[in-house]
Amino acid sequence: MELYGERGFEQTTVAEIAERAGLTERTFFRHFADKREVLFGGSDAVRDALVEAVAGAPEPASPLAAVGAGLMAFAEVLETERGRTFARRRQRIISSNDELRERELIKLATWATALADALRRRGVDEAAARLAAEVGVAVFKAAFERWVATTRGPKLPELVQESLDGLNALATAGSARTPAAAR
Amino acid sequence: MELYGERGFEQTTVAEIAERAGLTERTFFRHFADKREVLFGGSDAVRDALVEAVAGAPEPASPLAAVGAGLMAFAEVLETERGRTFARRRQRIISSNDELRERELIKLATWATALADALRRRGVDEAAARLAAEVGVAVFKAAFERWVATTRGPKLPELVQESLDGLNALATAGSARTPAAAR
Repeated sequence: MELYGERGFEQTTVAEIAERAGLTERTFFRHFADKREVLFGGSDAVRDALVEAVAGAPEPASPLAAVGAGLMAFAEVLETERGRTFARRRQRIISSNDELRERELIKLATWATALADALRRRGVDEAAARLAAEVGVAVFKAAFERWVATTRGPKLPELVQESLDGLNALATAGSARTPAAAR
Repeated sequence: MELYGERGFEQTTVAEIAERAGLTERTFFRHFADKREVLFGGSDAVRDALVEAVAGAPEPASPLAAVGAGLMAFAEVLETERGRTFARRRQRIISSNDELRERELIKLATWATALADALRRRGVDEAAARLAAEVGVAVFKAAFERWVATTRGPKLPELVQESLDGLNALATAGSARTPAAAR
Protein backbone atom coordinates (compact mmCIF):
# COMPACT_ATOMS: atom_id res chain seq x y z
CA MET A 1 0.00 0.00 0.00
CA GLU A 2 3.00 2.25 0.57
CA LEU A 3 3.71 2.04 -3.14
CA TYR A 4 0.19 3.17 -4.03
CA GLY A 5 0.76 6.19 -1.84
CA GLU A 6 4.16 6.92 -3.38
CA ARG A 7 3.39 6.61 -7.05
CA GLY A 8 -0.37 6.30 -7.36
CA PHE A 9 -2.58 3.25 -7.70
CA GLU A 10 -2.66 3.21 -11.52
CA GLN A 11 1.11 3.47 -11.86
CA THR A 12 1.96 0.67 -9.48
CA THR A 13 2.44 -2.79 -11.00
CA VAL A 14 1.91 -6.14 -9.31
CA ALA A 15 5.58 -6.91 -9.99
CA GLU A 16 6.60 -3.86 -7.94
CA ILE A 17 4.26 -4.72 -5.10
CA ALA A 18 5.55 -8.27 -4.98
CA GLU A 19 9.14 -7.07 -4.99
CA ARG A 20 8.58 -4.60 -2.16
CA ALA A 21 6.88 -7.32 -0.12
CA GLY A 22 9.58 -9.86 -0.92
CA LEU A 23 7.17 -12.14 -2.77
CA THR A 24 7.02 -13.61 -6.24
CA GLU A 25 4.15 -12.45 -8.46
CA ARG A 26 2.85 -16.00 -8.29
CA THR A 27 2.65 -15.83 -4.51
CA PHE A 28 0.98 -12.41 -4.75
CA PHE A 29 -1.79 -13.86 -6.90
CA ARG A 30 -2.24 -16.72 -4.45
CA HIS A 31 -3.26 -14.12 -1.85
CA PHE A 32 -4.93 -11.42 -3.94
CA ALA A 33 -7.14 -11.67 -7.02
CA ASP A 34 -5.79 -8.35 -8.31
CA LYS A 35 -4.15 -5.06 -7.34
CA ARG A 36 -7.36 -3.75 -5.82
CA GLU A 37 -7.63 -6.62 -3.37
CA VAL A 38 -4.60 -5.32 -1.46
CA LEU A 39 -6.85 -2.52 -0.25
CA PHE A 40 -9.89 -4.68 0.38
CA GLY A 41 -8.36 -7.76 1.94
CA GLY A 42 -10.28 -8.78 5.02
CA SER A 43 -13.55 -7.16 4.03
CA ASP A 44 -15.30 -10.56 3.94
CA ALA A 45 -13.96 -11.24 7.42
CA VAL A 46 -15.39 -7.92 8.60
CA ARG A 47 -18.73 -8.78 7.05
CA ASP A 48 -18.74 -12.13 8.87
CA ALA A 49 -17.79 -10.47 12.16
CA LEU A 50 -20.60 -7.93 11.76
CA VAL A 51 -23.08 -10.73 11.07
CA GLU A 52 -21.86 -12.65 14.11
CA ALA A 53 -22.21 -9.60 16.35
CA VAL A 54 -25.77 -9.04 15.13
CA ALA A 55 -26.61 -12.69 15.70
CA GLY A 56 -25.10 -12.56 19.18
CA ALA A 57 -26.71 -9.30 20.33
CA PRO A 58 -28.83 -9.85 23.47
CA GLU A 59 -32.35 -10.95 22.61
CA PRO A 60 -34.27 -7.80 23.53
CA ALA A 61 -32.03 -5.54 21.41
CA SER A 62 -33.83 -3.46 18.78
CA PRO A 63 -32.73 -3.98 15.16
CA LEU A 64 -30.61 -0.84 15.21
CA ALA A 65 -29.08 -1.71 18.57
CA ALA A 66 -28.08 -5.11 17.18
CA VAL A 67 -26.49 -3.49 14.12
CA GLY A 68 -24.91 -0.88 16.38
CA ALA A 69 -23.30 -3.64 18.47
CA GLY A 70 -21.67 -5.04 15.35
CA LEU A 71 -20.43 -1.64 14.18
CA MET A 72 -19.04 -0.77 17.59
CA ALA A 73 -17.14 -4.05 17.76
CA PHE A 74 -15.66 -3.39 14.33
CA ALA A 75 -14.79 0.19 15.28
CA GLU A 76 -12.81 -1.08 18.30
CA VAL A 77 -10.82 -3.43 16.05
CA LEU A 78 -10.05 -0.71 13.51
CA GLU A 79 -8.98 1.71 16.21
CA THR A 80 -6.48 -0.70 17.70
CA GLU A 81 -5.29 -2.99 14.95
CA ARG A 82 -4.80 -0.93 11.87
CA GLY A 83 -4.96 2.50 13.34
CA ARG A 84 -5.91 5.80 11.92
CA THR A 85 -2.68 6.35 10.00
CA PHE A 86 -3.24 3.21 7.97
CA ALA A 87 -6.91 4.05 7.39
CA ARG A 88 -6.07 7.62 6.34
CA ARG A 89 -3.47 6.45 3.86
CA ARG A 90 -5.85 3.86 2.43
CA GLN A 91 -8.68 6.40 2.19
CA ARG A 92 -6.49 8.85 0.29
CA ILE A 93 -5.61 6.22 -2.30
CA ILE A 94 -9.22 5.12 -2.68
CA SER A 95 -10.70 8.56 -3.06
CA SER A 96 -8.25 9.43 -5.83
CA ASN A 97 -9.37 6.54 -8.05
CA ASP A 98 -12.88 6.00 -9.44
CA GLU A 99 -12.52 2.26 -9.74
CA LEU A 100 -11.50 1.98 -6.08
CA ARG A 101 -14.29 4.26 -4.92
CA GLU A 102 -16.74 1.96 -6.68
CA ARG A 103 -15.18 -1.05 -5.00
CA GLU A 104 -15.51 0.65 -1.62
CA LEU A 105 -19.19 1.40 -2.21
CA ILE A 106 -19.78 -2.21 -3.22
CA LYS A 107 -18.08 -3.38 -0.04
CA LEU A 108 -20.43 -1.25 2.05
CA ALA A 109 -23.47 -2.43 0.08
CA THR A 110 -22.40 -6.03 0.68
CA TRP A 111 -22.16 -5.36 4.40
CA ALA A 112 -25.64 -3.83 4.40
CA THR A 113 -27.08 -6.89 2.68
CA ALA A 114 -25.34 -9.23 5.13
CA LEU A 115 -26.55 -7.18 8.11
CA ALA A 116 -30.13 -7.22 6.80
CA ASP A 117 -29.96 -11.01 6.40
CA ALA A 118 -28.62 -11.37 9.94
CA LEU A 119 -31.49 -9.26 11.28
CA ARG A 120 -34.06 -11.32 9.39
CA ARG A 121 -32.62 -14.43 10.99
CA ARG A 122 -33.36 -12.75 14.35
CA GLY A 123 -37.01 -12.53 13.29
CA VAL A 124 -36.94 -8.88 12.24
CA ASP A 125 -39.34 -8.27 9.36
CA GLU A 126 -38.04 -7.56 5.86
CA ALA A 127 -38.68 -3.79 5.78
CA ALA A 128 -37.27 -3.05 9.23
CA ALA A 129 -34.24 -5.28 8.61
CA ARG A 130 -33.37 -3.53 5.37
CA LEU A 131 -33.87 -0.10 6.89
CA ALA A 132 -31.81 -0.78 10.02
CA ALA A 133 -29.00 -2.31 7.95
CA GLU A 134 -28.83 0.55 5.44
CA VAL A 135 -29.04 3.16 8.16
CA GLY A 136 -26.41 1.37 10.23
CA VAL A 137 -23.97 1.40 7.33
CA ALA A 138 -24.77 5.08 6.69
CA VAL A 139 -24.02 5.88 10.34
CA PHE A 140 -20.74 3.99 10.14
CA LYS A 141 -19.74 5.70 6.90
CA ALA A 142 -20.37 9.15 8.37
CA ALA A 143 -18.37 8.32 11.52
CA PHE A 144 -15.53 6.76 9.54
CA GLU A 145 -15.21 9.83 7.33
CA ARG A 146 -14.91 12.04 10.38
CA TRP A 147 -12.31 9.67 11.82
CA VAL A 148 -10.02 9.70 8.78
CA ALA A 149 -10.45 13.45 8.25
CA THR A 150 -8.09 14.33 11.12
CA THR A 151 -5.05 12.76 12.75
CA ARG A 152 -6.27 13.59 16.22
CA GLY A 153 -9.78 14.00 17.51
CA PRO A 154 -12.14 11.40 18.95
CA LYS A 155 -11.53 7.68 18.47
CA LEU A 156 -13.62 5.70 16.00
CA PRO A 157 -15.79 3.92 18.59
CA GLU A 158 -16.65 7.29 20.14
CA LEU A 159 -17.54 8.68 16.73
CA VAL A 160 -19.73 5.70 15.89
CA GLN A 161 -21.51 6.03 19.22
CA GLU A 162 -21.90 9.76 18.64
CA SER A 163 -23.39 9.10 15.20
CA LEU A 164 -25.81 6.55 16.62
CA ASP A 165 -26.86 9.08 19.24
CA GLY A 166 -26.91 11.85 16.62
CA LEU A 167 -29.24 9.72 14.54
CA ASN A 168 -31.61 9.65 17.43
CA ALA A 169 -31.57 13.45 17.61
CA LEU A 170 -31.90 13.77 13.82
CA ALA A 171 -34.85 11.44 13.71
CA THR A 172 -36.68 12.88 16.68
CA ALA A 173 -36.19 16.43 15.55
CA GLY A 174 -37.18 15.42 12.02
CA SER A 175 -40.41 13.79 13.00
CA ALA A 176 -41.43 16.55 15.37
CA ARG A 177 -40.63 19.09 12.64
CA THR A 178 -39.08 21.37 15.22
CA PRO A 179 -35.76 23.17 15.07
CA ALA A 180 -33.02 21.28 16.83
CA ALA A 181 -29.29 20.92 16.85
CA ALA A 182 -28.63 17.58 15.20
CA ARG A 183 -26.04 16.44 17.66
CA MET B 1 -34.43 0.04 -22.19
CA GLU B 2 -36.88 -2.49 -23.63
CA LEU B 3 -33.96 -4.03 -25.51
CA TYR B 4 -31.93 -4.46 -22.33
CA GLY B 5 -34.89 -6.33 -20.86
CA GLU B 6 -35.32 -8.50 -23.95
CA ARG B 7 -31.76 -9.55 -24.60
CA GLY B 8 -29.72 -8.43 -21.62
CA PHE B 9 -27.62 -5.34 -21.11
CA GLU B 10 -24.33 -6.89 -22.28
CA GLN B 11 -25.82 -8.27 -25.50
CA THR B 12 -27.46 -5.03 -26.63
CA THR B 13 -25.43 -2.79 -28.93
CA VAL B 14 -25.69 0.96 -29.32
CA ALA B 15 -26.57 0.39 -33.00
CA GLU B 16 -29.59 -1.66 -31.96
CA ILE B 17 -30.71 0.90 -29.40
CA ALA B 18 -30.43 3.71 -31.93
CA GLU B 19 -32.37 1.71 -34.50
CA ARG B 20 -35.20 0.90 -32.09
CA ALA B 21 -35.41 4.57 -31.12
CA GLY B 22 -35.27 5.75 -34.74
CA LEU B 23 -31.97 7.58 -34.20
CA THR B 24 -28.55 7.44 -35.79
CA GLU B 25 -25.69 6.25 -33.57
CA ARG B 26 -24.26 9.75 -33.87
CA THR B 27 -27.43 11.24 -32.42
CA PHE B 28 -27.43 8.60 -29.68
CA PHE B 29 -23.96 9.68 -28.60
CA ARG B 30 -25.03 13.31 -28.59
CA HIS B 31 -27.49 12.40 -25.83
CA PHE B 32 -25.72 9.62 -23.96
CA ALA B 33 -22.03 9.12 -23.17
CA ASP B 34 -22.47 5.34 -23.36
CA LYS B 35 -24.93 2.45 -23.10
CA ARG B 36 -25.11 2.80 -19.33
CA GLU B 37 -26.31 6.40 -19.50
CA VAL B 38 -29.65 5.25 -20.93
CA LEU B 39 -30.42 3.89 -17.47
CA PHE B 40 -28.98 6.85 -15.58
CA GLY B 41 -30.18 9.78 -17.65
CA GLY B 42 -31.66 12.44 -15.44
CA SER B 43 -29.76 11.50 -12.31
CA ASP B 44 -27.98 14.87 -12.27
CA ALA B 45 -31.37 16.57 -12.57
CA VAL B 46 -32.60 14.55 -9.60
CA ARG B 47 -29.54 15.55 -7.60
CA ASP B 48 -30.19 19.21 -8.39
CA ALA B 49 -33.86 18.89 -7.47
CA LEU B 50 -32.93 17.29 -4.14
CA VAL B 51 -30.48 20.08 -3.42
CA GLU B 52 -33.09 22.68 -4.28
CA ALA B 53 -35.66 21.06 -2.01
CA VAL B 54 -33.17 21.02 0.87
CA ALA B 55 -32.31 24.67 0.26
CA GLY B 56 -35.99 25.59 0.12
CA ALA B 57 -37.11 23.68 3.21
CA PRO B 58 -38.70 25.99 5.80
CA GLU B 59 -36.07 27.54 8.05
CA PRO B 60 -36.85 25.74 11.30
CA ALA B 61 -36.65 22.27 9.68
CA SER B 62 -34.15 19.86 11.22
CA PRO B 63 -31.42 18.50 8.91
CA LEU B 64 -33.27 15.23 8.44
CA ALA B 65 -36.59 16.98 7.85
CA ALA B 66 -34.93 19.08 5.13
CA VAL B 67 -33.50 15.97 3.47
CA GLY B 68 -36.84 14.23 3.94
CA ALA B 69 -38.60 17.07 2.10
CA GLY B 70 -36.29 16.53 -0.87
CA LEU B 71 -36.78 12.77 -0.89
CA MET B 72 -40.55 13.08 -0.62
CA ALA B 73 -40.66 15.49 -3.55
CA PHE B 74 -38.59 13.09 -5.63
CA ALA B 75 -40.76 10.14 -4.58
CA GLU B 76 -43.87 11.98 -5.82
CA VAL B 77 -42.25 12.55 -9.20
CA LEU B 78 -41.15 8.93 -9.56
CA GLU B 79 -44.59 7.67 -8.59
CA THR B 80 -46.34 9.70 -11.25
CA GLU B 81 -43.92 10.24 -14.10
CA ARG B 82 -42.05 7.04 -14.63
CA GLY B 83 -44.16 4.71 -12.63
CA ARG B 84 -43.41 1.51 -10.89
CA THR B 85 -43.39 -0.63 -14.02
CA PHE B 86 -40.58 1.41 -15.51
CA ALA B 87 -38.65 1.40 -12.23
CA ARG B 88 -39.09 -2.35 -11.79
CA ARG B 89 -37.84 -3.07 -15.28
CA ARG B 90 -34.87 -0.79 -14.79
CA GLN B 91 -34.06 -2.34 -11.42
CA ARG B 92 -34.11 -5.85 -12.88
CA ILE B 93 -31.59 -4.85 -15.55
CA ILE B 94 -29.34 -3.11 -13.07
CA SER B 95 -29.27 -5.86 -10.50
CA SER B 96 -28.26 -8.42 -13.11
CA ASN B 97 -25.09 -6.54 -14.08
CA ASP B 98 -22.18 -5.74 -11.74
CA GLU B 99 -21.07 -2.69 -13.70
CA LEU B 100 -24.56 -1.20 -13.53
CA ARG B 101 -24.90 -1.96 -9.82
CA GLU B 102 -21.67 -0.03 -9.24
CA ARG B 103 -22.99 2.86 -11.28
CA GLU B 104 -26.18 2.88 -9.22
CA LEU B 105 -24.20 2.97 -5.96
CA ILE B 106 -22.12 5.84 -7.27
CA LYS B 107 -25.28 7.72 -8.19
CA LEU B 108 -26.56 7.37 -4.63
CA ALA B 109 -23.19 8.40 -3.16
CA THR B 110 -23.22 11.49 -5.38
CA TRP B 111 -26.67 12.39 -4.12
CA ALA B 112 -25.51 11.98 -0.51
CA THR B 113 -22.57 14.31 -1.11
CA ALA B 114 -24.81 16.90 -2.78
CA LEU B 115 -27.35 16.68 0.06
CA ALA B 116 -24.61 17.14 2.67
CA ASP B 117 -23.33 20.22 0.81
CA ALA B 118 -26.84 21.64 0.66
CA LEU B 119 -27.26 21.14 4.42
CA ARG B 120 -23.93 22.83 5.13
CA ARG B 121 -25.11 25.81 3.13
CA ARG B 122 -28.08 25.95 5.53
CA GLY B 123 -25.60 26.29 8.37
CA VAL B 124 -25.73 22.66 9.52
CA ASP B 125 -22.35 21.57 10.88
CA GLU B 126 -20.16 19.14 8.95
CA ALA B 127 -20.80 16.02 11.03
CA ALA B 128 -24.58 16.44 11.26
CA ALA B 129 -24.82 17.30 7.55
CA ARG B 130 -22.93 14.19 6.48
CA LEU B 131 -24.92 11.98 8.84
CA ALA B 132 -28.33 13.34 7.81
CA ALA B 133 -27.42 13.05 4.12
CA GLU B 134 -26.13 9.47 4.35
CA VAL B 135 -29.05 8.39 6.51
CA GLY B 136 -31.52 10.12 4.17
CA VAL B 137 -30.17 8.21 1.19
CA ALA B 138 -30.25 4.96 3.19
CA VAL B 139 -33.90 5.60 4.06
CA PHE B 140 -34.71 6.28 0.41
CA LYS B 141 -32.87 3.17 -0.76
CA ALA B 142 -34.76 0.96 1.69
CA ALA B 143 -38.12 2.47 0.63
CA PHE B 144 -37.30 2.23 -3.06
CA GLU B 145 -36.39 -1.44 -2.76
CA ARG B 146 -39.72 -2.17 -1.13
CA TRP B 147 -41.48 -0.20 -3.86
CA VAL B 148 -39.96 -2.11 -6.77
CA ALA B 149 -40.31 -5.47 -5.01
CA THR B 150 -44.06 -5.66 -5.75
CA THR B 151 -46.39 -4.43 -8.47
CA ARG B 152 -49.02 -3.39 -5.96
CA GLY B 153 -48.63 -2.26 -2.40
CA PRO B 154 -48.09 1.21 -0.98
CA LYS B 155 -46.95 4.08 -3.21
CA LEU B 156 -43.38 5.32 -3.04
CA PRO B 157 -44.12 8.53 -1.11
CA GLU B 158 -45.95 6.49 1.52
CA LEU B 159 -43.03 4.09 1.75
CA VAL B 160 -40.51 6.92 2.11
CA GLN B 161 -42.64 8.49 4.84
CA GLU B 162 -42.96 5.11 6.52
CA SER B 163 -39.19 4.65 6.40
CA LEU B 164 -38.61 8.11 7.87
CA ASP B 165 -41.05 7.28 10.66
CA GLY B 166 -39.54 3.80 11.02
CA LEU B 167 -36.15 5.42 11.43
CA ASN B 168 -37.53 7.32 14.35
CA ALA B 169 -38.71 4.08 15.94
CA LEU B 170 -35.42 2.32 15.16
CA ALA B 171 -33.36 5.10 16.66
CA THR B 172 -35.45 5.60 19.74
CA ALA B 173 -35.68 1.90 20.47
CA GLY B 174 -31.96 1.56 19.78
CA SER B 175 -30.90 4.28 22.14
CA ALA B 176 -33.22 3.19 24.90
CA ARG B 177 -31.94 -0.39 24.44
CA THR B 178 -35.45 -1.72 24.87
CA PRO B 179 -37.29 -4.26 22.77
CA ALA B 180 -39.55 -2.69 20.18
CA ALA B 181 -41.09 -3.40 16.85
CA ALA B 182 -39.12 -1.33 14.38
CA ARG B 183 -42.08 -0.04 12.49
